[in-house]
Amino acid sequence: MEKSRYELALEALENIVKNIYEQLEKGEVPSMSLPARNKYNIKLDLLTGVWKYGNEKIVRSAKKIDGAYTLLRTMYLMDFIKEMIVQSKSSTLREMYYISEGWDLAKFHTQDESNKLAEDLEIVTKFLREDFKLRPEENGATVIGNITFEEINRKGKLQKINCRDDVGDAGYAIPYNVEKDKLRILNVDADFVLAIETGGMFDRLVENGYDEKARAILVHLKGQPARSTRRLLKRLNEEWKLPVLVFTDGDPWSFRIYASVAYGAIKTAHISEYLATPTAEFIGITASDIVNYDLPTDKLNERDIGALHAELTDPRFNTQFWKNEIELMLKLGKKAEQQALAKYGLDYVTDVYLPEKVSELGL
Amino acid sequence: MEKSRYELALEALENIVKNIYEQLEKGEVPSMSLPARNKYNIKLDLLTGVWKYGNEKIVRSAKKIDGAYTLLRTMYLMDFIKEMIVQSKSSTLREMYYISEGWDLAKFHTQDESNKLAEDLEIVTKFLREDFKLRPEENGATVIGNITFEEINRKGKLQKINCRDDVGDAGYAIPYNVEKDKLRILNVDADFVLAIETGGMFDRLVENGYDEKARAILVHLKGQPARSTRRLLKRLNEEWKLPVLVFTDGDPWSFRIYASVAYGAIKTAHISEYLATPTAEFIGITASDIVNYDLPTDKLNERDIGALHAELTDPRFNTQFWKNEIELMLKLGKKAEQQALAKYGLDYVTDVYLPEKVSELGL
Repeated sequence: MEKSRYELALEALENIVKNIYEQLEKGEVPSMSLPARNKYNIKLDLLTGVWKYGNEKIVRSAKKIDGAYTLLRTMYLMDFIKEMIVQSKSSTLREMYYISEGWDLAKFHTQDESNKLAEDLEIVTKFLREDFKLRPEENGATVIGNITFEEINRKGKLQKINCRDDVGDAGYAIPYNVEKDKLRILNVDADFVLAIETGGMFDRLVENGYDEKARAILVHLKGQPARSTRRLLKRLNEEWKLPVLVFTDGDPWSFRIYASVAYGAIKTAHISEYLATPTAEFIGITASDIVNYDLPTDKLNERDIGALHAELTDPRFNTQFWKNEIELMLKLGKKAEQQALAKYGLDYVTDVYLPEKVSELGL
Repeated sequence: MEKSRYELALEALENIVKNIYEQLEKGEVPSMSLPARNKYNIKLDLLTGVWKYGNEKIVRSAKKIDGAYTLLRTMYLMDFIKEMIVQSKSSTLREMYYISEGWDLAKFHTQDESNKLAEDLEIVTKFLREDFKLRPEENGATVIGNITFEEINRKGKLQKINCRDDVGDAGYAIPYNVEKDKLRILNVDADFVLAIETGGMFDRLVENGYDEKARAILVHLKGQPARSTRRLLKRLNEEWKLPVLVFTDGDPWSFRIYASVAYGAIKTAHISEYLATPTAEFIGITASDIVNYDLPTDKLNERDIGALHAELTDPRFNTQFWKNEIELMLKLGKKAEQQALAKYGLDYVTDVYLPEKVSELGL
């Protein structure tokens, strides 16, 4: 029988322990090496189009007291993870922090310490923390459209859910773990995936039946998307070859939402291959849209302007399209929301705007 | 055939227009009167246990230019609402603001202006803005448990969903409109409703199968609960006579989450009868729990201390229980999260804490 991701993750963790044990046996001071996590050691990988760590390493050795504590914590944490896998349990990062109250000297002193250790284990093992049964606090988003999932629920029962016929108008709530062991994508009847920033616009497209009219799977990003949402978009793109289009407000923060879907984020650079969809296209509000569609706007504030300037030097926005749009937005001094399209009525976004933008992409 | 809430709401709106028309016919300067919305005209109604407006009125007259604009906007807005009801559409408050771009002199200048007008219409007509097809941006929360809803979906089709057997582990996503016209509660097999503040704790109780063990309906509040979530809790309490228990973190902000479920909020005082559940019980973390369960804590900061002092003079917290707990928290100088119970393991909350607290309530 094929091993589950949990079992494989457990093996990877046990290899770390084995490694440390062997060092101790040889009479060496135990240590663990992992990629340096600073901005100089992270780059946009040209081959895959996503953020990745470079070759710089740091060594966590028990020679120093801090390093010794971290290794001790690592051992306790692995033990805790093993227990969860055996018992089919999972925990939030916050719970893990409190659980460590019982770890004696290995107790975490801040949530930051425990979060960082969980990320370190992701980096070293190349597994996701969800594979270690450590789940995020953040909630998943929702899906509407003709896609059928098979979710293995908490009781181990297979639950088949079609996101058009078996859900209410608020859609299918994405679980925190969307790996194949937990969630299978049985069938999709659609031409593309539309990832939408705001709940107001998601509900608009649902009400207007855009999923059926345009043969689209609608995914609500809920602002900066959670890991599970980005992972699901990636799987739809990879396994079902569906183009992913990202529909956001027109401001620098929304551009970053697009970038995190397409290229990943610095914080999760070690798992970009799992989370990023480099072919994702932006069809959110641009500065050109503000002009062409004569949209109601708000003035850019100081923070917006700073963020736009930062994006001009961000390698993820290093294309002619983004350079032009960011410079035009700075020149206009204005931003616009996706709901601003309501200026022309509630159907304008689905009757005019999206069909125009989608056909520009040749879809 | 019985009239829908939308039709009744429309009649109420048309009465306002009729009234203004009659004033104009008599050669009077038209005006509209509504309760004053200030903190001196709001009180905790002893009979119903919720916040309500007093008898102080303000008059919005076309004598002054501001009043004239507001009346003009009111007419445009009613026309828009009528159109939506006829076409089975709905819009967010944000979309309505942008829609007003086409209203000439009646155009809103700020989102605040349009939000306030929507609230005014709620106050005058005693209907909910959802009945006017104006829906909130905020997303509903999720439900897990043995409860069966019948939702009339966007296509007018009846959709039967059991929140234990027909949903994934993330639960049933509550739609923005939970009135009877949209959402019927067909059946509930449970002894009480547990409303939970954080997603981490909701997922914990789901994973531990607390809904089945304790015969509970689990509702995730997602922090300060949305209107639709509070309305659903109220309906479960009123129609199915289920006790509502509120399980939150132990800090002044979480106490306010409980108070908004139980007594309503100042901002929505005019619709407290729809949203508040005065018999809701608090079983979140208290200062006594911090002591009795020896929970990991964080220090109260200046803002926490200020909020606790404000609660000591808030009529909603004017009971011996709250007075004791707030004073003890100030004395300890500490707050605690609900996930802090993980100190004793992942099952402690469902095996020990909740059974103890629930049985104290005699349930």
